[in-house]
Amino acid sequence: MNNLAAVARGDIPASITLKNAKILNVFSSSYEPADIAVYSGKIAGIANNYNSPTSIDLNGRIILPSFIDGHIHIEDTMLTPPNFANLATLHGTGSVFADPHEISNALGLAGLQYMFRASQGLPIDIFFGAPSCVPASNLETPFQELDALSVRDMFSRGLVQHLGEMMNYPAIVAGDPEAWSKILAAGDVPLTGHAPGLSGKPLNAYCCAGLTSDHECTSVDEAVEKLSRGMWLMLREGASFHDLVNLLTIIKANPAASNRCMAVSDDITARYLTESGHMDEKLRIMLREGIDEFTAVRLITLNPAEYFRKYDRGAIAPGRLADFVILDNSELTPDFIISEVWKNGRRIMSGGEIYNPYELSEASHIAPVTSRKVRNIPSVEALRVKAEGEIMRVIGVIEGTALTKTLEFKPIVRNGEVLPDNGRDIAKIVCLERHNDTGRFGVGFVNGMKINRGAIGSSVAHDAHNFVVIGMDDQSIITALHALADMGGGLVCTNGQDVTASFALPIGGLMSYKNADEVCAELTKMENAALSLGVSIPHPFMVMSFLCLSVIPELRITDLGCVDITKGGVQDIFVR
Amino acid sequence: MNNLAAVARGDIPASITLKNAKILNVFSSSYEPADIAVYSGKIAGIANNYNSPTSIDLNGRIILPSFIDGHIHIEDTMLTPPNFANLATLHGTGSVFADPHEISNALGLAGLQYMFRASQGLPIDIFFGAPSCVPASNLETPFQELDALSVRDMFSRGLVQHLGEMMNYPAIVAGDPEAWSKILAAGDVPLTGHAPGLSGKPLNAYCCAGLTSDHECTSVDEAVEKLSRGMWLMLREGASFHDLVNLLTIIKANPAASNRCMAVSDDITARYLTESGHMDEKLRIMLREGIDEFTAVRLITLNPAEYFRKYDRGAIAPGRLADFVILDNSELTPDFIISEVWKNGRRIMSGGEIYNPYELSEASHIAPVTSRKVRNIPSVEALRVKAEGEIMRVIGVIEGTALTKTLEFKPIVRNGEVLPDNGRDIAKIVCLERHNDTGRFGVGFVNGMKINRGAIGSSVAHDAHNFVVIGMDDQSIITALHALADMGGGLVCTNGQDVTASFALPIGGLMSYKNADEVCAELTKMENAALSLGVSIPHPFMVMSFLCLSVIPELRITDLGCVDITKGGVQDIFVR
Repeated sequence: MNNLAAVARGDIPASITLKNAKILNVFSSSYEPADIAVYSGKIAGIANNYNSPTSIDLNGRIILPSFIDGHIHIEDTMLTPPNFANLATLHGTGSVFADPHEISNALGLAGLQYMFRASQGLPIDIFFGAPSCVPASNLETPFQELDALSVRDMFSRGLVQHLGEMMNYPAIVAGDPEAWSKILAAGDVPLTGHAPGLSGKPLNAYCCAGLTSDHECTSVDEAVEKLSRGMWLMLREGASFHDLVNLLTIIKANPAASNRCMAVSDDITARYLTESGHMDEKLRIMLREGIDEFTAVRLITLNPAEYFRKYDRGAIAPGRLADFVILDNSELTPDFIISEVWKNGRRIMSGGEIYNPYELSEASHIAPVTSRKVRNIPSVEALRVKAEGEIMRVIGVIEGTALTKTLEFKPIVRNGEVLPDNGRDIAKIVCLERHNDTGRFGVGFVNGMKINRGAIGSSVAHDAHNFVVIGMDDQSIITALHALADMGGGLVCTNGQDVTASFALPIGGLMSYKNADEVCAELTKMENAALSLGVSIPHPFMVMSFLCLSVIPELRITDLGCVDITKGGVQDIFVR
Repeated sequence: MNNLAAVARGDIPASITLKNAKILNVFSSSYEPADIAVYSGKIAGIANNYNSPTSIDLNGRIILPSFIDGHIHIEDTMLTPPNFANLATLHGTGSVFADPHEISNALGLAGLQYMFRASQGLPIDIFFGAPSCVPASNLETPFQELDALSVRDMFSRGLVQHLGEMMNYPAIVAGDPEAWSKILAAGDVPLTGHAPGLSGKPLNAYCCAGLTSDHECTSVDEAVEKLSRGMWLMLREGASFHDLVNLLTIIKANPAASNRCMAVSDDITARYLTESGHMDEKLRIMLREGIDEFTAVRLITLNPAEYFRKYDRGAIAPGRLADFVILDNSELTPDFIISEVWKNGRRIMSGGEIYNPYELSEASHIAPVTSRKVRNIPSVEALRVKAEGEIMRVIGVIEGTALTKTLEFKPIVRNGEVLPDNGRDIAKIVCLERHNDTGRFGVGFVNGMKINRGAIGSSVAHDAHNFVVIGMDDQSIITALHALADMGGGLVCTNGQDVTASFALPIGGLMSYKNADEVCAELTKMENAALSLGVSIPHPFMVMSFLCLSVIPELRITDLGCVDITKGGVQDIFVR
């Protein structure tokens, strides 16, 4: 440390000096033309005349602190942490705050240990939160519950630094001791929230538990209310959910609010990362929306660092990590090009090529114990829905948000059985418990997937990650379930007895060992196969995966049946 | 905790409800008309329809979070912590972050223990920092050094939550292991800085040590540079130093910078507290300067809370402490009147009357061991300064800041001895080591005190708090030293062999057991006595007390002689 001060003073040379940088200063909201002295992975100083034997002339190009994602589920990229890190590096990411609750649902503690192990020594820093909701609610069945004692142990062992999103907001609001015990187990750390649509007195109750952020706001009013109650706003821009542009309205109306906002990913796919980008994409969006560049950059650097109390990053300042994004540009426009990415004082990406100076150990690639083979698969007959009412509930997909609507339809009935209905875009949806092979399954109907024949299925089904299948006929659904069981998890398209396409996800039925390009190719293959079944909505497998998530309003499907968290439980298919 | 949620939901009644409040919301930068439900010392919720058996109707009057002072030395008020707390309560203060380095210099660990003990159970929360610089530098001699091990112990025992101001910035910049060891001993807590005038590469080195705030900025350029390097700015408005108005320029030019700024007191007197106020005065100043009310309030509420990571206060929001300031007004103008102050859900002040519901134990009033009687007092002859040069250095007082100038004067000489000079406002200044009765003293000259006869003396002499006396003749100075010794510390005015006025400070020579009104009366008496010696500058005893502080540029006096921290040591009186 004293050497760092000596470099800062100019008494001993830096490891490397970045000369003639145009520093975007997130504190002063200005550009600063200067040299940056780097030593031992840190920034020693900023001044006009640092020199060292090794230096790079930036010629007035802009340098930013590397980007920080305040909320992401890495499992949803289907990439291993090393493969995710390689891809994120290309886009200027230096740190992410990840909630590994997907793997925790699918593989329990063994899955979490895999994530922690596989995240060591990567070109980005992955900070994990302790999953607070495994299962997400008592309306879902994961492989293993993660209880408060396990949460406390993870903190004691230093494996986690914040509490992952507290999705079971009804339990928190209700004062449920089990949900509150997770809060107590976490202690004095950032407690991240998830409370879609929560407002008024229930929101007050949620805040009383100490939850200090939320990434589920979809309307400006909702976001302003949460901000007013002291919550930090995580403005989400993911593969399926695009809340960022709308919520930027808040900052435009009240610039002071920006210092408690950050942009986050939540759920993104390998393809979104490859094609659109990561935090760089969010920066582009904010710039296009007219947010000033200093505010926009703060939302993906300083602000998440402050929220998560990581005071060693998020800005280019002496003593902080030498984590940089260097642009090809001397003006920051939405079309900026990232030419270099630095981490801990080392250049790890240049011109789109990853130097990958970190050795990825073989051990980090070893899969954890996979879940058992599913043998209890229902028969075609068991999936039939008897027409026992006049009006049925249907899960209504809302494009672009994680919310669903409860729709009501008059069923089409043949031989006393409710049938899917191409004309009104109503398909059957099934969720089969897979982790403990109980054979338990729920059946319902869904509108908005645009499927017109066959079935699509997946073992990625938030958050319990049981098997979910949407189909227009029971045979296609059963074929999909068998294919998923045979693969040990993955994605599948079927038509009658044929499997038309499949993509195995051997790590807990969530992740592949393949690299980003290969995963993208598999996803394209799967989406094309789905499209040939009529499924023309974007990211159909991701959209389907959220239809099982019992903690976002309104109607969902789990292995217990149709569930509505706002109504507090399992709902009959028929309204009357 | 679950009860709090139940109150928030409206399922069980609040302890008390504040109806029809006009809440100043520091997050949304807006006023919110609502009811506030209070339970168990905390805010349960904010909504339009909370009810409880006990309620108070605010009739649209403004309610603010109670005020927070991010940097204060309580000893400088000369009040015991209970008496300080009573006074601060009148002005809406709910929490202060105090650096007890004065008592630590004067009475060592026993003095610190007294401060901790005397601060329990008060109507405000006093959070102490671990003094980082006792002595302030090796150019001063305190009662006892506070070493890194002691600092670490204080953290381990939970007595302190942040590191007090690291004033020995030259040692930090130079990489001195002893100074750096205090940083390491503190660990991951807010490390508060003190680096007047530090800039460029030395400032980089200082920041590398992890110091994240500064309260010594006097110019806008200095403040903007420190802000740019990642430091939080503490805008000081104290009894003698008035940097706030000038530094508000930064916020006017760059509103985004305001979220890393706070207003602080540093050094204030009982009289300043009584006559001008505490944080309420800073709020008035900011409002008068045209700072918008939401930003202004944040600077004395949310911002210091965030900097010191006290996430339970600084805003009116569910889950936070029910610490309020209620105004008589429904519009916030500089003339606002505080009608009530609440702490932990209890009304502790109303209409200028303190309810004082907290029992102040007798134990908290017990004085710590006082320092030994000083017996080694120099003779009149020993104070003589031989005329051994043509040009002498003189300490130049700069009104309104803690800085001094090094002035150069041709001495007036009689019989080979340099004399004070009424015409050019040059007095003799003496600093006598008192804690260990070594008899060591330094002599120098000072310009700007406007004294024209006799002497004024004090045992409050930052930071080592040896005896300091300024006088126009050696006999008056010697009389003052004897009077200080006889009192065991205090303030004194003398003329020849007469003690014209004195005020004893029995607690370490720093604090009185008297209450605020009595202390103010004593101070008035002393300042009138000083005025009768010609001393017409404001707060002369406070100004004098800073002339011994070896860590603010430029020239100072300590028991070692004239010292200049920027030049690194003891300086001869004569330049040539």
